[in-house]
Amino acid sequence: MDDILIRNVRPFGGETRDLYILDGRFADSRAGKPAVEIDGSGYVALPGLVEAHTHLDKTLVGMDWFENRVGPTRNERIIADRQAKRELGIDARRQSARQILQTLAFGVLHIRSHVDVDTEIGLANVEGVIETRNAFRDLVDVQVVAFPQSGMLVREGTLDLMEAALKAGADIVGGIDPASIDRNPVRHLDAIFALADRYGKPIDIHLHEPGELGAFCLELIAERTRALSMQGKVMVSHAYCLGMLDAPRQRMLIDMLAAEEIAVMTVGSPSAPALPLRAMREAGIVMASGSDGIQGTWEPWGNGDMLERAKYLAQRNGMTNDVDLAEAARICTFGGAECMALEDYGLSSGCHGDVVLVPARTLAEAVALTPQRRTVIRRGRIMVRDGVPSGKLPNVG
Amino acid sequence: MDDILIRNVRPFGGETRDLYILDGRFADSRAGKPAVEIDGSGYVALPGLVEAHTHLDKTLVGMDWFENRVGPTRNERIIADRQAKRELGIDARRQSARQILQTLAFGVLHIRSHVDVDTEIGLANVEGVIETRNAFRDLVDVQVVAFPQSGMLVREGTLDLMEAALKAGADIVGGIDPASIDRNPVRHLDAIFALADRYGKPIDIHLHEPGELGAFCLELIAERTRALSMQGKVMVSHAYCLGMLDAPRQRMLIDMLAAEEIAVMTVGSPSAPALPLRAMREAGIVMASGSDGIQGTWEPWGNGDMLERAKYLAQRNGMTNDVDLAEAARICTFGGAECMALEDYGLSSGCHGDVVLVPARTLAEAVALTPQRRTVIRRGRIMVRDGVPSGKLPNVG
Repeated sequence: MDDILIRNVRPFGGETRDLYILDGRFADSRAGKPAVEIDGSGYVALPGLVEAHTHLDKTLVGMDWFENRVGPTRNERIIADRQAKRELGIDARRQSARQILQTLAFGVLHIRSHVDVDTEIGLANVEGVIETRNAFRDLVDVQVVAFPQSGMLVREGTLDLMEAALKAGADIVGGIDPASIDRNPVRHLDAIFALADRYGKPIDIHLHEPGELGAFCLELIAERTRALSMQGKVMVSHAYCLGMLDAPRQRMLIDMLAAEEIAVMTVGSPSAPALPLRAMREAGIVMASGSDGIQGTWEPWGNGDMLERAKYLAQRNGMTNDVDLAEAARICTFGGAECMALEDYGLSSGCHGDVVLVPARTLAEAVALTPQRRTVIRRGRIMVRDGVPSGKLPNVG
Repeated sequence: MDDILIRNVRPFGGETRDLYILDGRFADSRAGKPAVEIDGSGYVALPGLVEAHTHLDKTLVGMDWFENRVGPTRNERIIADRQAKRELGIDARRQSARQILQTLAFGVLHIRSHVDVDTEIGLANVEGVIETRNAFRDLVDVQVVAFPQSGMLVREGTLDLMEAALKAGADIVGGIDPASIDRNPVRHLDAIFALADRYGKPIDIHLHEPGELGAFCLELIAERTRALSMQGKVMVSHAYCLGMLDAPRQRMLIDMLAAEEIAVMTVGSPSAPALPLRAMREAGIVMASGSDGIQGTWEPWGNGDMLERAKYLAQRNGMTNDVDLAEAARICTFGGAECMALEDYGLSSGCHGDVVLVPARTLAEAVALTPQRRTVIRRGRIMVRDGVPSGKLPNVG
């Protein structure tokens, strides 16, 4: 860890100034001569990008091309996904390491990953990702969600495995479509809230349920959040239903989520409903974004760059002016950090000395053009310089 | 122009074979030793990418960052766009050259550009783009559409300017939202069809009109296409209305467009309605795609890569399997070529010796990951080798 002076950068696109990192944290003063000086060239400085929703255990990055012959329904995809885990021998430890190193070069320093738990693979994926998390502790923060991808109630034994995953080190209780996949929304939600309550863990639930079915599930989630005083500890991922209802009904649900401090994660997928981002922000809902799976059996694309994700969010929502682009960047940094309850996050004095320098003249340009030759510093340690990874980073092949 | 042997490539993702270019065209035989041999490394070989809808005259590539404070409506954007042309001094000749050279590196060898004609700038933009077209004749095909961006009937004198644009060398008669912008769909369409008929030119009309208003305009377009026997010479760009109607009504309109051989261009924008691509293809409608404006006052993003555009199309339409990705690639190559009536297009013997080598194992991977280090050959001349432009390309600053 070096003391670093970064001259002439624009923190989150603001006025140019210098940043000083001392003992791994941002500092105001610059007592003494820093060990390292970096000419920031007026570039935009961002705090570490936040990947709030991905699937580290299932990316196929670096593997043979997967010829996708899968149909369009969620169920066809879940079956294909489970089959691929079996037949392709996806090694969760290795694949999570590959994705983490790939996205580190973009400046992604905080990752929440859902990790499959099911009656076929058991805890293998959770153990693999936790192994990587521990090995990479000095490079990136990883939160592991015990995720019942194939259903929980419909596959007996899954709930026990989720509990075992928490004991093995998973940080968060996951869930998925309590009605359309698990066929019993009340029992599903009761079970995961009870588990979260018993272990003192947050909840992060995949909710693709459409329209009023999704709205009903949101209500059930809010009721349980309130009953267990879990405000600020629940995130709903996707929440497509919010983009499928008329404005008054949207408003009711938004107010309900805001009252229970339930966060929402949206990836801004071009083929999924667009959420009412502006109304959600104005109501004070904390929002995060993520890449979802990259280069897997679900979707063939994706690189895990959370600055490009900000562009996707903006594109999906017709956010084309500079103020809107800054808001998209905020969701992929500060918004994600709040959802993940990261401490000492940001570019202010006292915060962890994490920063991403993006060669762009304004924050809007950084989002719109997502330049690649970035410099990434974590806790005062230079990980990537002008797009070139430090020689000290591990090589996972 | 050299005779070239390209070993070991996958034409449009098919079985690996060699390609031979003789006197600027693909040939079966390889009499004699070619002057140049290229190791194709099993890469995917595509014909020249086709940009069927852009605005070469208005990109801000290479200029100062434009701080966009524009509101979301089409009218606000048109006004901001006209103001920017005036205040930023956008030089259509220089800017079109910049975009062409940027996209040549991706393998874009055929471009249809709408070019603004209005009562403020007159023919300046048309003349500027035509100057670039002529200067770059050996690099890329450019078709110029005389485009009444600010309205035609509502700004008196615009129709005369469009006629003057045709006389100055524009190839195609443009049009825009005959109801919502020009306030008189019948008169607008009568005027542009009469102009096209008189000069023997094709038509390409921007149609953003929503729902049943758009459907009515499509009907008017089909009626005029039939009356003037212009089948195969009319393209509708965007045609959002097709994505806004229920399935039976969609079907009626699709059948009508197919009967009159009216082509459709869609950019697959994440924030615009998705068209029923599968039903349109099955009905035999020829489809093309384009980048629309890149890095301009309308939208801050975009690089003009038509392979990335294929990915956008696929993402917008939930086309995730390999067959669907190939279809997206087809729209951005053969589909565009048919819409633009390009002759001798493709990788078959006798076609122009234009080819783009993409470092990917399959066509689906080429679309999903859009690798950048491409090799681009036009008429047997190597323009770009492994992502590095030939030193012989012009420098436009």
